[in-house]
Amino acid sequence: MHQRIGIIDLGSNTTRLILMAYQPHLCFKLIDEVSETVRLAEGASDDGLLQPLPMKRSIEALKMFYTLCRAADVQQIVAVATSALREAANQYDFLAQLKQQTELDLRILSGEEEAYYGYLGVINSLPFTDGIVVDIGGGSTEVTAVRGRAISVASSQPVGVVRLTERFVQSDPISKKDFRALEQAVAATFAELDWLKPDVGPTMAGLGGTVRNLARIDQKLRNYPLDRLHGYIFTREALDDIVELLRRSTLRERESLPGLNRERADVILAGAMILRQLMYQGDFPQLMVSGQGLREGLFYEYFLTGQPLPLFADKRAFSVRNLALISNYEALHASKVRELSLMLFDQLQSLHNYGQWEREMLDYAAMLHDIGVQVGYYDHHKHSAYLVFNSALQGFTHREVVLLAMLTRYHRKGSVDVSTYRVILQEDDEERIARLSAMLRIAEYLERSKSQVIHSLRVECDADMVKVYVQAVGDATVEVWDANRRTRLFKRAFGKDIEILM
Amino acid sequence: MHQRIGIIDLGSNTTRLILMAYQPHLCFKLIDEVSETVRLAEGASDDGLLQPLPMKRSIEALKMFYTLCRAADVQQIVAVATSALREAANQYDFLAQLKQQTELDLRILSGEEEAYYGYLGVINSLPFTDGIVVDIGGGSTEVTAVRGRAISVASSQPVGVVRLTERFVQSDPISKKDFRALEQAVAATFAELDWLKPDVGPTMAGLGGTVRNLARIDQKLRNYPLDRLHGYIFTREALDDIVELLRRSTLRERESLPGLNRERADVILAGAMILRQLMYQGDFPQLMVSGQGLREGLFYEYFLTGQPLPLFADKRAFSVRNLALISNYEALHASKVRELSLMLFDQLQSLHNYGQWEREMLDYAAMLHDIGVQVGYYDHHKHSAYLVFNSALQGFTHREVVLLAMLTRYHRKGSVDVSTYRVILQEDDEERIARLSAMLRIAEYLERSKSQVIHSLRVECDADMVKVYVQAVGDATVEVWDANRRTRLFKRAFGKDIEILM
Repeated sequence: MHQRIGIIDLGSNTTRLILMAYQPHLCFKLIDEVSETVRLAEGASDDGLLQPLPMKRSIEALKMFYTLCRAADVQQIVAVATSALREAANQYDFLAQLKQQTELDLRILSGEEEAYYGYLGVINSLPFTDGIVVDIGGGSTEVTAVRGRAISVASSQPVGVVRLTERFVQSDPISKKDFRALEQAVAATFAELDWLKPDVGPTMAGLGGTVRNLARIDQKLRNYPLDRLHGYIFTREALDDIVELLRRSTLRERESLPGLNRERADVILAGAMILRQLMYQGDFPQLMVSGQGLREGLFYEYFLTGQPLPLFADKRAFSVRNLALISNYEALHASKVRELSLMLFDQLQSLHNYGQWEREMLDYAAMLHDIGVQVGYYDHHKHSAYLVFNSALQGFTHREVVLLAMLTRYHRKGSVDVSTYRVILQEDDEERIARLSAMLRIAEYLERSKSQVIHSLRVECDADMVKVYVQAVGDATVEVWDANRRTRLFKRAFGKDIEILM
Repeated sequence: MHQRIGIIDLGSNTTRLILMAYQPHLCFKLIDEVSETVRLAEGASDDGLLQPLPMKRSIEALKMFYTLCRAADVQQIVAVATSALREAANQYDFLAQLKQQTELDLRILSGEEEAYYGYLGVINSLPFTDGIVVDIGGGSTEVTAVRGRAISVASSQPVGVVRLTERFVQSDPISKKDFRALEQAVAATFAELDWLKPDVGPTMAGLGGTVRNLARIDQKLRNYPLDRLHGYIFTREALDDIVELLRRSTLRERESLPGLNRERADVILAGAMILRQLMYQGDFPQLMVSGQGLREGLFYEYFLTGQPLPLFADKRAFSVRNLALISNYEALHASKVRELSLMLFDQLQSLHNYGQWEREMLDYAAMLHDIGVQVGYYDHHKHSAYLVFNSALQGFTHREVVLLAMLTRYHRKGSVDVSTYRVILQEDDEERIARLSAMLRIAEYLERSKSQVIHSLRVECDADMVKVYVQAVGDATVEVWDANRRTRLFKRAFGKDIEILM
């Protein structure tokens, strides 16, 4: 991965830099990240005239980001600005000052472009093909309708958390009157979006700091078992509860609210109100959180260079391979384990009756089963699960992430216990995990010496016994010996004995 | 690391293989491990005549290990056997059969050699210089006195868990009579060790599967917060409780006892009785568990090749560097962060009054602070802590491991919270961790662009303010800017404001 790119995004509340190392179309990895709450929109007048101090703070931060990019030897810097600058009467002043102090070329995105890049980030990283994408920012809110992975309507409203807060949140805790005014202003802003109806698509996806912070508050309140935001789903009822909590608490109380970044403690209520308005107006019962957005969308344009529309053909398969690659996986071994797992899966079809989805999960888990070895050989099945949980896997629900992590966890040792993740899983998932990992475990030990000696297998099932006959291209005694030592999980999961024979 | 070695150890209960990749004197890493409960000593007569079935099982396992070594392209295989074979009247039969079926050269260790390699494993990996090393095996028990890192007395008694169990555990749960007989036999066996007194040295260290399993049972009973055995300390009172538990439970109950490997469920009580006898006889109130032993001791002889006695000059420093190296750390960045951390530590001496020990911990944490980046940049401070907790760090107590992990955890973000580890830490450790990680955090951000621009710093303290003047060899604006954004932890930990100035 010898290409490096820096992506800078100057918002109305925050400015951020991400640094990516990548090889186009093949693999990528985040290598650095910085953010600074610059509040560029602070005190801006109705025609968006930016104030000297916020401008100075923002230029200062951009200078730092630029220096960091140079120090990291990036070949490319992509810097964009959104609503604060877009609407500023004095945007040329700002650009001139910036030009004087750095060599940054700042591209001012239109509302449609901002919506587009947010959409690219979401569509490439969430299990999402149809629905509404909402991006709540400091100075504007983008609402985009997506049908069959393509944008059908995009809108950008010049209403964001910074200006809403300045205008309506004058009291602490907020007074009834202020709250009412805020609620009405938000409702009026989005009234014209008459296409925001549930028939647009089943899912509402949200991105941006406001959404991430609200989701984190919800996770803390619920004691959610994963430390993972991307793909998290929270309900409108949960949002109602958080709005009540924020409404009743003082700024000081909010500053120590678990999950909330203290620099957002002042503006979070306004953000929550925007989100709530959109969920009720469109009658969406829940929101799926995206950890990716504008910056990642911009990145994908460079990463998937040459494509007219930078969408992954198969984001899940891509990202599983990406994780395997950046974890230095052993490709030959993983391929063989995949192959043997799927042979077992297919030939045991009548025992488990699972479909394409389970087959796909088993396939991905086989690809990733050993990535924990980079942490250390001892207990590496546990490390693989840790890496899956903490990865940037794209296109999976949390239930699927838990499933993949648990399959890697149980690929070589242990009796399945998924009680920690009960709230994320469905009732029959424990059995599903036991059965799939039982097959993965047999496949793993049939590749015990990592020499790809077994080229095929044939399964014979009768009432209480499964016999697996293997065909090898060399000496497979270790494989057969060790696979036969690891059948306990299979016996429990399927209620049948199993024997591996040459 | 292009050298690979396989170490095989054929015991009376278990046979094991470890595969190591290494570069002599520089770094090493475990790359594979297998074990099989072969019970070679099963049914052996008083003169140690091995039975055909146990011999067959053992040879079968050794053949598998040999095949695995060949598949892994090891240059060297070191295979040793201990008491079962040492004492067997038919040891030549066994060796002849083995020779027929593999090319393994099996070296039969004397009791003294067995004690020596166990001692090498312990002395190179635990915080231990004086005391008693106990190795409880299937067929023998080695007790070794160590003074100033050297062996002063070594003894090997032909009493191990397999034969003791066969002889005394006839009832289930064990009858009072059998228990008494077991207790008396064990006491009689070690009666001659009249040098086993507390004045030998303060610590008793234990190795082998029995000790590891007893410790794991204790950890489960106590809900111990670390999933780490090496360096774990358990008390004689805890051992008494476990003996009572084992004594009262049936084999079936023991088979599902949390922490206990079910293949040891039959022999564990006999093992516990040996350990208890030695702890009482020598009046040792607690035992420190070693995860390393005979196999690692044999490995160190190859790893530290050329040394008359294969001991690390400084095991802690070696193993911190080893962990950094196998985690592909950025050496220049880590060195600079170490240097700046220690400059801060030294110049803030009057504020914290810490000594050499804390300085050493800060130094090691600075070396390891970024190893989590290999997992992923996002939240890499948490990954660093995970890697430290799951590493094979040598020579540290659990308190020190928690300290190192927490310093890496807080090196860039977050307010210190160590409540999870309260039972391992001392009362003032939370403050200690906050202060040391506050210094580490300032140092980290003074190396923000990883360009080593700051070459020295000068600290000025007055009643409520610390000023840090940095001297740079290039543009250090990013460093000073970012370090000044990260002072909250320092302010809280030291109760003083801090400012970084150029």
